[in-house]
Amino acid sequence: MARVHNYYAGPAALRVEALEAAKAELLDFRGSGMSVMEISHRSKQYDALHNETIALFKELLGLGDEFKVLLLQGGASLQFAMVPMNLLAEGKSADYILTGSWSKKALKEAKIVAASRIAATTEQDGVFSRIPKQDELDLDSDAAYCHITSNNTISGTQWSRFPDTGGVPLVADMSSDILSRRFDAAPFGIIYAGAQKNLGPAGVTVVVVREDMLEKMSQDIPTLLSYRTHIDKNSLFNTPPCFAIYMVNKGLEWLKGFGGLEAMERENEKKAELIYGAIDEGRDFFKSPIELESRSKMNVVFRLPSEDLEQRFIEESADAGFVGLKGHRSVGGIRVSTYNANTLDSITDVVGFMKDFAKSKG
Amino acid sequence: MARVHNYYAGPAALRVEALEAAKAELLDFRGSGMSVMEISHRSKQYDALHNETIALFKELLGLGDEFKVLLLQGGASLQFAMVPMNLLAEGKSADYILTGSWSKKALKEAKIVAASRIAATTEQDGVFSRIPKQDELDLDSDAAYCHITSNNTISGTQWSRFPDTGGVPLVADMSSDILSRRFDAAPFGIIYAGAQKNLGPAGVTVVVVREDMLEKMSQDIPTLLSYRTHIDKNSLFNTPPCFAIYMVNKGLEWLKGFGGLEAMERENEKKAELIYGAIDEGRDFFKSPIELESRSKMNVVFRLPSEDLEQRFIEESADAGFVGLKGHRSVGGIRVSTYNANTLDSITDVVGFMKDFAKSKG
Repeated sequence: MARVHNYYAGPAALRVEALEAAKAELLDFRGSGMSVMEISHRSKQYDALHNETIALFKELLGLGDEFKVLLLQGGASLQFAMVPMNLLAEGKSADYILTGSWSKKALKEAKIVAASRIAATTEQDGVFSRIPKQDELDLDSDAAYCHITSNNTISGTQWSRFPDTGGVPLVADMSSDILSRRFDAAPFGIIYAGAQKNLGPAGVTVVVVREDMLEKMSQDIPTLLSYRTHIDKNSLFNTPPCFAIYMVNKGLEWLKGFGGLEAMERENEKKAELIYGAIDEGRDFFKSPIELESRSKMNVVFRLPSEDLEQRFIEESADAGFVGLKGHRSVGGIRVSTYNANTLDSITDVVGFMKDFAKSKG
Repeated sequence: MARVHNYYAGPAALRVEALEAAKAELLDFRGSGMSVMEISHRSKQYDALHNETIALFKELLGLGDEFKVLLLQGGASLQFAMVPMNLLAEGKSADYILTGSWSKKALKEAKIVAASRIAATTEQDGVFSRIPKQDELDLDSDAAYCHITSNNTISGTQWSRFPDTGGVPLVADMSSDILSRRFDAAPFGIIYAGAQKNLGPAGVTVVVVREDMLEKMSQDIPTLLSYRTHIDKNSLFNTPPCFAIYMVNKGLEWLKGFGGLEAMERENEKKAELIYGAIDEGRDFFKSPIELESRSKMNVVFRLPSEDLEQRFIEESADAGFVGLKGHRSVGGIRVSTYNANTLDSITDVVGFMKDFAKSKG
């Protein structure tokens, strides 16, 4: 069948150009006579791909030499454990700012490992609908780090300006908005992102470690769970998830050709404006449950006048070729993800569908 | 270019039928209008694929309901840590039988976590060239488990009959020979295998857990490192490496069509006999450094009269279209891997090349 409009929140759409490039050489990677899946991770061909991917990622984000980029397995969920295992040596504590389910999960794992405290939470009656203000943060100036979730896929909120922690390194789960916009990486000690939302397919997690964080790292943890191992071995201590890395590479190449983060940010803002425009215009019909300044430009969530209408919206949109518009089961409603691979054209079609639906049912 | 004879030890060759099937539907998985890489792991389509893969794996190995099959990330190297983290509760110790570099690495990780002892080692002057005999094993009848490496990719040895541990559960790293032959799984508490040698591409690790092992498992470990989490959630606690699992599925389907493990075992024996035949025939030229009963049927290693000739063998074989015949850098020599995806035809060609080379240089 024809390709659908794919709005799954993750694993999510990939740029069709990346998929087509992969298809073309699936049985013969760069003239090697082998699939990229069949090549030893110790071969020159794989080594080149691996290093190109890291260099391209650094170039696109404008990361300096003080940042090491790792390509790991286990998803952001494993980082929830690896961050405290590596950074919370005896007697140290970390701050967590809670803005959604994922930050709560990160805190839960930290607590299994060591002391950790809540520096702020915007949960109210079990619901998160905003990012905290700077003056709401109760920060520990001795914390080993302060953890945030840059974009909250489920609740639909996003940090537009990152918090000022007074020098305490920020650690951020950027799984759902990495490479969607430019930002200053200087205050970040660690950034991690599962690939399956805005980078590529599931199976690889990009972790950025600022070099000075190494000095504070624990030594007595399993080898594969230590950032030091992966930095020392350039993420080749054991076999990396080669094909997932290859697809990330294809996506990064596409992004560079598109004009890099500046062009991408502009496009993503246009996409978000289109949808929020449709929501605000039809104020009686669509309603954003999110505080204005906290609205995510990656996952736009909204409600309809009734759950029955939401159900019909999901069904009719699916019939019209839009897949995955159902909000996360824990919050309900509708979610339109506007990842890099969700094109402006497709978003324009979604917005057209929204307006028609509102007109016919409103 | 034409497809080469791929003898990398891992990541390794995949059956061309599996690659072609993947290529055909790379942009449209089962008529969904999306790539399998783009589909939510909570979708019906992915769920079906996930469960089919687990069911097919169990069917091919003949595993009963008492075995749970997990699809995890991190490679066998992460299992080196997860096994002791899960199974070595306070006061417990494990036995390790050392038959090569990988079993030594597994022991190293166990020692970071808890008490572990060496029940046997065949290392002599830094070299492993055999599997220990039953009467060489110094087993602890109170051990939580006894760990073995079923096939040693680097040294080229393989357990032809698994050790009798008197009821202590065996834990086996079967990364390099899983699904290559039939065996009785009953004595195994845990079996794990990184996919990239004999199952599929890198990025997924299959872990088989016998249900009764759960009773002894530690509770206070990070959620993602606990087998219990993955058993409770059918390996869907977090996003699985969907595409790697999909490729494993393609490989399993091929294997079932080929006649399952009985047919595969017969084919693998033929392949090994062909190469060992050529080695033993040309005794003056090729030499196996491995004790006869310990010879691996998955990774056949051999030496030539001089390192200079070995170098020429590697170069001339590469020119003839055979990639990856160089032995592991730590042991030198030549290695012919005879994984399920290395066809009998291709092995016949390797053996032809060996004989010609011996004739011209011998």
